[in-house]
Amino acid sequence: MISEDLGARISFLVRLDDLKRVYRRTVLMGETMHDPRHENTAEHSWHLAMMALVLLPYAREKVDPLTIVTMALIHDIPEIIAGDAYIYDETAREAAVAKEQDAANVLFGMLPPDQAARLRELWDDFTECRTPEARFVAAIDRLQPVLQNIHSKGIMWRWHGITAAQVIAKNQVMQRGAPELWDYTVELIRRAVHDGVLPAGPVLPGEAAARS
Amino acid sequence: MISEDLGARISFLVRLDDLKRVYRRTVLMGETMHDPRHENTAEHSWHLAMMALVLLPYAREKVDPLTIVTMALIHDIPEIIAGDAYIYDETAREAAVAKEQDAANVLFGMLPPDQAARLRELWDDFTECRTPEARFVAAIDRLQPVLQNIHSKGIMWRWHGITAAQVIAKNQVMQRGAPELWDYTVELIRRAVHDGVLPAGPVLPGEAAARS
Repeated sequence: MISEDLGARISFLVRLDDLKRVYRRTVLMGETMHDPRHENTAEHSWHLAMMALVLLPYAREKVDPLTIVTMALIHDIPEIIAGDAYIYDETAREAAVAKEQDAANVLFGMLPPDQAARLRELWDDFTECRTPEARFVAAIDRLQPVLQNIHSKGIMWRWHGITAAQVIAKNQVMQRGAPELWDYTVELIRRAVHDGVLPAGPVLPGEAAARS
Repeated sequence: MISEDLGARISFLVRLDDLKRVYRRTVLMGETMHDPRHENTAEHSWHLAMMALVLLPYAREKVDPLTIVTMALIHDIPEIIAGDAYIYDETAREAAVAKEQDAANVLFGMLPPDQAARLRELWDDFTECRTPEARFVAAIDRLQPVLQNIHSKGIMWRWHGITAAQVIAKNQVMQRGAPELWDYTVELIRRAVHDGVLPAGPVLPGEAAARS
């Protein structure tokens, strides 16, 4: 009764439900230290897609709206199989690369070939930061958790012993995709240090801007 | 330091975080009757945007991809203030209309005027089902909770005493936006009745198709 094409698309969409169960280190805005509600990757992806729509005028180069929104929606889909790797955990990040490639093969491979290829190409572009669109989405993907942290008094930064120096070092890549948003992020970090929600940490070369 | 334009956009994006705390009647796929994990509106909106991308070939009329994805992303934003109204609760649905209009004014009104107007127009189009895009997004917005219910053994249908007759009556509007997806939904409902996860309920005119 159901065509092979529709069956494949529905199976993929049913599998996507699992992204709602992948929890990130970040917590919802307004959370406090006691048993905070962590953010999951599905709702993070929605938030990022909204950021793509709303912050588009701040892209460094001209970007295609449909491409950035689609990229935001799919950028973390391989986490359904590979799980989330914390940005400040270098070992986990390195181990994640191959796992995410395999997961992308399996998950996008559930779709009819033409759509599988299109989404896989967008995901590869995102992971390799090849295009203006990928650099912009990578930039807002850095801003989003900074906003989550700022609006939860930095409890996850403090829990994991993250310093301003690390936040600057990890996120300065934002300059490539959205320099004004990077300037804004530096200002947020400076204020977080001033407010005592983010320890300054050792001063590393080029990172003095993070100090209040 | 931060421009008025960027400040307005960031305030809106920060406010959006609250959609992750609006819980729906539907539960995640694979949940069982004991303390099930309900779906929130942010992750539902992500899922719907993915359905828009993946099921686009099943739209009845030609639709613009960016419009349907944007509409899916924003369609429930007013729930941040108005809350979620259960589709089978007529009283709550009627009370929600005015509340959602007010909420849309407040929330989209946080953005710079041009983007506020554009998103508000899309949201109005969605609620009034004026365009092929709105009718398609309305159709997949009906299919999504049916899939959630089917893949959680209909526990929320049974909990609320919903019958196949009601599911058919509420969702047959899908025909206007995606007739093949409606045929597929009728087949899902028929199977759910056969499998005993959805009570058949009284036979209403034109609803005999739901019976196994």
